[in-house]
Amino acid sequence: MRTYLDCIPCFVRQSLEAARLASDDENLHRKILERALKTAAAWDYSIPPPGLGQGVHRAIRELSGVDDPYGETKTRFTGYLMELVPELEQRVARADDPFLAALKLAVAGNVIDFGINIHLTRSDIDRAVESALAWEPDRESVEAFRNALAASAKILYAGDNAGEIVFDKLFIRWINELFAPVEVTFVARGCPILNDVTLEDSRRAGIEEVARLIDNGSDAPGCLLDDCSAEFHAALDEAGMVISKGQGNYETLSEIPHQTFFLLKAKCSCIALDIGVAEGDLILLHKPPDKTGNPA
Amino acid sequence: MRTYLDCIPCFVRQSLEAARLASDDENLHRKILERALKTAAAWDYSIPPPGLGQGVHRAIRELSGVDDPYGETKTRFTGYLMELVPELEQRVARADDPFLAALKLAVAGNVIDFGINIHLTRSDIDRAVESALAWEPDRESVEAFRNALAASAKILYAGDNAGEIVFDKLFIRWINELFAPVEVTFVARGCPILNDVTLEDSRRAGIEEVARLIDNGSDAPGCLLDDCSAEFHAALDEAGMVISKGQGNYETLSEIPHQTFFLLKAKCSCIALDIGVAEGDLILLHKPPDKTGNPA
Repeated sequence: MRTYLDCIPCFVRQSLEAARLASDDENLHRKILERALKTAAAWDYSIPPPGLGQGVHRAIRELSGVDDPYGETKTRFTGYLMELVPELEQRVARADDPFLAALKLAVAGNVIDFGINIHLTRSDIDRAVESALAWEPDRESVEAFRNALAASAKILYAGDNAGEIVFDKLFIRWINELFAPVEVTFVARGCPILNDVTLEDSRRAGIEEVARLIDNGSDAPGCLLDDCSAEFHAALDEAGMVISKGQGNYETLSEIPHQTFFLLKAKCSCIALDIGVAEGDLILLHKPPDKTGNPA
Repeated sequence: MRTYLDCIPCFVRQSLEAARLASDDENLHRKILERALKTAAAWDYSIPPPGLGQGVHRAIRELSGVDDPYGETKTRFTGYLMELVPELEQRVARADDPFLAALKLAVAGNVIDFGINIHLTRSDIDRAVESALAWEPDRESVEAFRNALAASAKILYAGDNAGEIVFDKLFIRWINELFAPVEVTFVARGCPILNDVTLEDSRRAGIEEVARLIDNGSDAPGCLLDDCSAEFHAALDEAGMVISKGQGNYETLSEIPHQTFFLLKAKCSCIALDIGVAEGDLILLHKPPDKTGNPA
């Protein structure tokens, strides 16, 4: 997805918020804001929006000396959501369609974005879970998802936020159980950026119990293809299908030739416009392979 | 008032909105957005925020060739509010305290800001009027206001939006009646900018029936002192007191030495912070003369 003009005011606002999270020094806030404004003034709109965030978060790390402002919060939220898993596992197991229930929970995970609201309560989380379980994703896309899983030996699963990965793990466990033999490769970000999932967060949530774990080698809040590692590209090339979680991955993977299933909540008007849904909608979007096709 | 860091994301967003109002050409929107970003990146924060708007609206006029995107809407709203005047005049005349009722209506005028919401309905306007009439401004400030009016031969009244001036006129009529002999000079902007009041708008509303009319010679959405005309400064120097309507005037006149009564709705968090009130509050703020005092 290209950068929209409306991404710019949002990016400027988020840059100031991120600067304040990393430091209490108003001079530093101003420097980071100025860096964001200069980056935006010279922006190449063909680059997906996570490129904007990448630049300003590099500046924040450089200028503040803080490498991971969300680190503690990420660990807290991941631990918190892990406590919910035994009960949710049972609900999925008892569901008429455990695959669909686990898929919905994976989207619930994307709704619970403490990067947007750091003061999330237990009842916010419960509401997100219940609304996702009540959601009815497009049936054809769900069937295409099952068929693609049955036909794929290797799957690339692009993770989004810490916290959320607890539900990704649950979903991947069911994928392994229902579509064996299948090899899922879970992709974390290459560096702490916002509340996005890193290798360390993934290990903490036990992702390695259900998937091969790699990072994408990039410090952008998404998978900016030109910036991702050879390891990431090798895994992408081998994959029969891609499961892409969240906005940052949609923004950077929406034009890959591979068959892809995007799972996300459309949290802003630009994403909603790009997909053709309403802001706030829960999304399962199936993008069939392009003519170049999936290699595997 | 200085520019706050939080003014910047808001300014960037407003610039894009204003560009879209002036033209349908997305290339032009992008150019204007880039101009806004460059202006903001090099900003001197000691200049009040209307300086930001001044620069970007110059760029909009230059690049779009549209001098007054709000022109038609301003005329429509002014006409619309003029229809309400006979009934409101009667309410003021019947009130226990006509001065206070007319003052409250002047603030209601500032609440009705079709620059923020162009789709205002009759019931929005009625609600603004009723909530302003129910509002209880600080009593001491109201008494100080009466005393200042009684003691002043000349008053500078800095107008804000078209539409709103219909209520300003009603208020000035009562000031003339209750505090005669008094000379009110009504100040319009020097150039069409947003939905702010110009000489033409003022004449259309019949301001000259109740006040001497001048403009401030500036194309900023406020009274940026360094940019205002000699005529404006002469009127300011002569005035025994200033009545300042709205945010743009507060932002540019908050530090003048003159006794000033600011009437406004605090429409953003920075203004609210600067005044020390809650966002959305209706405000009558009395700033006594500084040591340098009021000249008149």
